[in-house]
Amino acid sequence: MKFLAAQKDAVDAALDAAVDASIAPPGPETATIASAMRYSLRAGGKRVRPALTLAAASLFGGEAGMAAAMPSAVAVEMIHTMSLIHDDLPAMDNDDLRRGLPTNHIVYGEDVAILAGDALLALAFEHVAKATEGVDPRRVVSVLGVLGACVGARGLAGGQVMDLESEGKGDGEVTMDTLTWIHTHKTAALLVASAVAGATVAGASEEDVERLRSYATKVGLAFQIADDVLDVTASSAVLGKTSGKDEAVNKVTYPRLLGLDGARSRAEELVAEAKACLDVYGDKADVLLGLADFIIERSN
Amino acid sequence: MKFLAAQKDAVDAALDAAVDASIAPPGPETATIASAMRYSLRAGGKRVRPALTLAAASLFGGEAGMAAAMPSAVAVEMIHTMSLIHDDLPAMDNDDLRRGLPTNHIVYGEDVAILAGDALLALAFEHVAKATEGVDPRRVVSVLGVLGACVGARGLAGGQVMDLESEGKGDGEVTMDTLTWIHTHKTAALLVASAVAGATVAGASEEDVERLRSYATKVGLAFQIADDVLDVTASSAVLGKTSGKDEAVNKVTYPRLLGLDGARSRAEELVAEAKACLDVYGDKADVLLGLADFIIERSN
Repeated sequence: MKFLAAQKDAVDAALDAAVDASIAPPGPETATIASAMRYSLRAGGKRVRPALTLAAASLFGGEAGMAAAMPSAVAVEMIHTMSLIHDDLPAMDNDDLRRGLPTNHIVYGEDVAILAGDALLALAFEHVAKATEGVDPRRVVSVLGVLGACVGARGLAGGQVMDLESEGKGDGEVTMDTLTWIHTHKTAALLVASAVAGATVAGASEEDVERLRSYATKVGLAFQIADDVLDVTASSAVLGKTSGKDEAVNKVTYPRLLGLDGARSRAEELVAEAKACLDVYGDKADVLLGLADFIIERSN
Repeated sequence: MKFLAAQKDAVDAALDAAVDASIAPPGPETATIASAMRYSLRAGGKRVRPALTLAAASLFGGEAGMAAAMPSAVAVEMIHTMSLIHDDLPAMDNDDLRRGLPTNHIVYGEDVAILAGDALLALAFEHVAKATEGVDPRRVVSVLGVLGACVGARGLAGGQVMDLESEGKGDGEVTMDTLTWIHTHKTAALLVASAVAGATVAGASEEDVERLRSYATKVGLAFQIADDVLDVTASSAVLGKTSGKDEAVNKVTYPRLLGLDGARSRAEELVAEAKACLDVYGDKADVLLGLADFIIERSN
């Protein structure tokens, strides 16, 4: 996708600069943790979440909005990377492979991996607070509140706990409602925060923010369904991580509840609903519409 | 100490309310993670860091300053609790006992303990962003930047990585400079952030903030030296956690480099220097002076 590719270099450079700033002046004391933080940040992510932030900022603030939103774009990728590092740990999903590379704890050890995740999570907030320029500080505070909420008990962490609790309950004990709760919090919450942060920084109204929230919630659910489908259909080599994990731990997934075709249809439906949330913006929302398509195309 | 005791109930209540707000409305989905977050928050901490925040806020803003600083006071305790949960994990210090109680991962499992720590860290930022009232939003952004920095590569996480790297190097490989770096980042950084956050919220000038920073850095170092001394001299029963750990992992400590008496003298010296940083405030700094004394008295 063009916007994604066009923004990737700028996001990558901003990520590097943010880590550099956090250890300035660099010294032997911070060498290991900085290396561990950079390793996972550079491990080949497509920067979908930063793209969402920048696209939302562009919709409401044009080029200037995008520039102002770069620290928030960087922050959501840091949060995402933290969640991947911690999810891959032996005590969690116990994955050795991520994006085709050894996971953080395989390279740096579990202790450093846990701490690198903590440091990335904290840096996300520090960076938004220190690097956001030319934005009403009330909006910066609001973004920091949104980013905090998307990680906590009603976000990534809470969703992941419920996800872990649903393992071994693949035979009817977990309902569609619970599964949707898990996905909404484990996966959609950060996509919602990504879009809302970009819109907020760029000066969007509350009504606009709510539209972006609905759009991103539906995109997030579609994203997770696509991920579940890939876990069934793709090989580990194509996926860059271990496939077939859900089946192995007897976990409820959309493909399991709806069948593969049913799950694919549901994802397509959700993407259509997500796009409809942005009808009011016409052509100006093209990038956000394209991002929604990009996400569903992963599963085909 | 009187101030500490007087504030403890209010801090405890504010901590409970903050966790409640983060899972509102409560439901079965957030039951486990909220329980794990509360378990460690309620596990008997003396709330030294919140007291530092509130005392600093009181110095520059009186009663109103203290009220405005309560969300920051709550946040530093959440960050502290996160660091304890993660430090106790099998992959880190592997402690079963903390403050006389089973550690978080013993009760909830490693996976939930990691996620509860992540959720507490994120909630610290969310809470400051959402619950701070009547404060110039530029100051709130500044506090969030300070809190972020104290956790990252030049804070708790970086200090802990260096601390782990110093294990097994107790025989001359780790210098006093390195040990001081570790303590300054692993321990002092959060105490500094606690004091600076309180001062900032209450409207302190940059000069005032720098005085508080110097005071808290010295108090933090004294605190860690006292902790090292306790690890040698106290039983696990008195300590409420496993004693003699430093010796067991052949770690450099102040008692090892300076002897027990030398370490105690250094801690006393640092407390005197810390107090001197606040000379300019006369009697108004009494509570902060008392907190410095309280910290050193732990080691006797």
